[in-house]
Amino acid sequence: MSSSRKPFSSAEYKARVEKTRKAMKKQGMDVLIITAPANMAWLTGYNAWSFYVHQCVVLAQDGELFWFGRGIDASGVPITTDLTPEQIHTYHDHYVQSPERHPMDVLAAMLYDKGHHLSRIGVEKDSYYFTARAMESLQAGMPKAEFIDATGLVNWQRSLKSEAEIQVMRGAARVIESVYERIMEVAKPGMRQNELVAEIAHASVLGTEDYFGDYPAIVPLVGSGPESAACHLTWNDQLLPADNGVFLELTGVHHRYHTPCSRTLYFGEPPKHYRKVEAVIQEAIETTLEFFRPGFTCADAANAFFNKLHQHGYEKDNRCGYSIGLAYPPDWGEHTMSLRGDDETEFKAGMTFHFMPGLWFEDWGFETTESVLVTDSGGECLANVPRKLLVV
Amino acid sequence: MSSSRKPFSSAEYKARVEKTRKAMKKQGMDVLIITAPANMAWLTGYNAWSFYVHQCVVLAQDGELFWFGRGIDASGVPITTDLTPEQIHTYHDHYVQSPERHPMDVLAAMLYDKGHHLSRIGVEKDSYYFTARAMESLQAGMPKAEFIDATGLVNWQRSLKSEAEIQVMRGAARVIESVYERIMEVAKPGMRQNELVAEIAHASVLGTEDYFGDYPAIVPLVGSGPESAACHLTWNDQLLPADNGVFLELTGVHHRYHTPCSRTLYFGEPPKHYRKVEAVIQEAIETTLEFFRPGFTCADAANAFFNKLHQHGYEKDNRCGYSIGLAYPPDWGEHTMSLRGDDETEFKAGMTFHFMPGLWFEDWGFETTESVLVTDSGGECLANVPRKLLVV
Repeated sequence: MSSSRKPFSSAEYKARVEKTRKAMKKQGMDVLIITAPANMAWLTGYNAWSFYVHQCVVLAQDGELFWFGRGIDASGVPITTDLTPEQIHTYHDHYVQSPERHPMDVLAAMLYDKGHHLSRIGVEKDSYYFTARAMESLQAGMPKAEFIDATGLVNWQRSLKSEAEIQVMRGAARVIESVYERIMEVAKPGMRQNELVAEIAHASVLGTEDYFGDYPAIVPLVGSGPESAACHLTWNDQLLPADNGVFLELTGVHHRYHTPCSRTLYFGEPPKHYRKVEAVIQEAIETTLEFFRPGFTCADAANAFFNKLHQHGYEKDNRCGYSIGLAYPPDWGEHTMSLRGDDETEFKAGMTFHFMPGLWFEDWGFETTESVLVTDSGGECLANVPRKLLVV
Repeated sequence: MSSSRKPFSSAEYKARVEKTRKAMKKQGMDVLIITAPANMAWLTGYNAWSFYVHQCVVLAQDGELFWFGRGIDASGVPITTDLTPEQIHTYHDHYVQSPERHPMDVLAAMLYDKGHHLSRIGVEKDSYYFTARAMESLQAGMPKAEFIDATGLVNWQRSLKSEAEIQVMRGAARVIESVYERIMEVAKPGMRQNELVAEIAHASVLGTEDYFGDYPAIVPLVGSGPESAACHLTWNDQLLPADNGVFLELTGVHHRYHTPCSRTLYFGEPPKHYRKVEAVIQEAIETTLEFFRPGFTCADAANAFFNKLHQHGYEKDNRCGYSIGLAYPPDWGEHTMSLRGDDETEFKAGMTFHFMPGLWFEDWGFETTESVLVTDSGGECLANVPRKLLVV
């Protein structure tokens, strides 16, 4: 895989923009203000840790496409995108985190001047970095524009991966395989959580000779002992004792594409309840993978999984997966399809999911999860990590 | 430092809550909905990677204080806070990332039932995880409530650090010292960016025997060669060649408290323009540190720095620092004080800043930054990392 700052061809970015314009047209949208970093990156390639200040990509039906952000971030645009200097607009640094001035005031004035003050404008109302204050600022600057919720519009264009994207995800899968190889080399009872996570962090960034590791949209989550009932705690320096289970929620990342893959580690001889859940989840995964193909829906896969658990006396009342791909913190989910009973989206070959059969009990948790590519012959697990309780 | 999930005493959390209630009262605020993860953590201790779904802490003048979040995250609350089961309210998993249902609908209904539908309610309108959609949902559920912008209200309560917080920050400083020690051991020309960052990530998480490393709110930023003009790019697998400068924007983190410290690395004999900027910045830092004491303002420190640069023929048109402390991705800044010419906030002993004398030119960049504690006798640099161009 190339080390280039531009992992996809110019033609691919162009096709993505045109696809998005078509989706905008269907909703009668003149202008779309894209603030979700993954959507900005997917459309233009823009990739930098600058999403802690207000920034966006603006796409209009009339042909316009530009990046808008903080002055000092403009130099990252030509390095990571095909945008020309005319397509880069900035705001002054005194707008940064100021209580009096808001960057979106500048954007609103710019769009007004371009004649969009009466337009139908899509905004990603529920995306992480589009705040209530950003919305107020745009409305105040263009009081006669009609703002409509475009949350998910670009995300849905991303759901079917191109061949080039699948290749990048296969690279991310090689990264997570190397992470688990490292874990099996170094994990031992009595080490501290941070010692184990330090090794995971090292292997995740190093990647393989062909595929460098990129930063994850969610840091490694490690749950040990009674705390493993809480699924989103992060590490500290507690000892990982013998005769104890540890769940690891981890991902490989390459060029911002994620292939999450979780396993549960056991130091010592696993007790019966671990072995029982291991067997049930293995069987449920095998059964469910058959459903990841055209002709079935997200709900079909979820129900196949929930039914198999139910047969064995287990219940899970949260979703068992979601679509994945390009992502930035704080989440590697794509925010479109969910593997749950009421999601009737049909599978298409080329979709990718984090299939997440995690079970959390009163005082322990168990995870065995896979990144799955939908193919005509069923789900293909992208990473080849032994699908079992990892016993040390 | 304890490995506890509760790094501060119950009395300290109680005092923080009371201090915040007083600030609310000044603004006639009945209820405050706190969505910024760092503010949630500062008030209650709640600490988990769950901010990718809607969640908050609600604080009312009438004595109420509760955590509101996703069902599966509730088990993390008693582990990290003193909140009792009656102070933990959840929403069902089918509200997660659903286009039809919004978690804030549930909160609005709950606040309505508690009699807050006519209240004056503060919301953090410009905090990262408070979206435009969350605002709409609250307004729709409580149309007669008055919503006022409380962005920064809790952040400002955090600006003066307690002795216990300063101790945690000293721990973070030990972490970043160990990171630079590792860098000087392993850095060599011809290594790849990801190889260097893998070592940085390892050392950052490992920390020291006494102080574990926590995850950073901003990943390591590395700029090499002409790309170093772009200050927020992240690593890939490019070679770091000989006779080349690399800026490193890094932080130590302990119990979520950050002490950023950046340096510039040079492989080979540094050219004159590097040595010149090094000397100018060293002198400007020495001069400016004197101003970090009561009696001076943020503007005084910023102007002292800008004037010193100007004397040597350099100009910087963005701020040269900001307050720091407890932080979650995507930013380690506290979003209160900025070191810039128009910030007239007076320094008090116990405030902490990232003093950030970075200079970016057309095709290179140079960073030497320090985490500074304001004391009665001037700024104290928390970390003891050699303040010079690091030459390998």
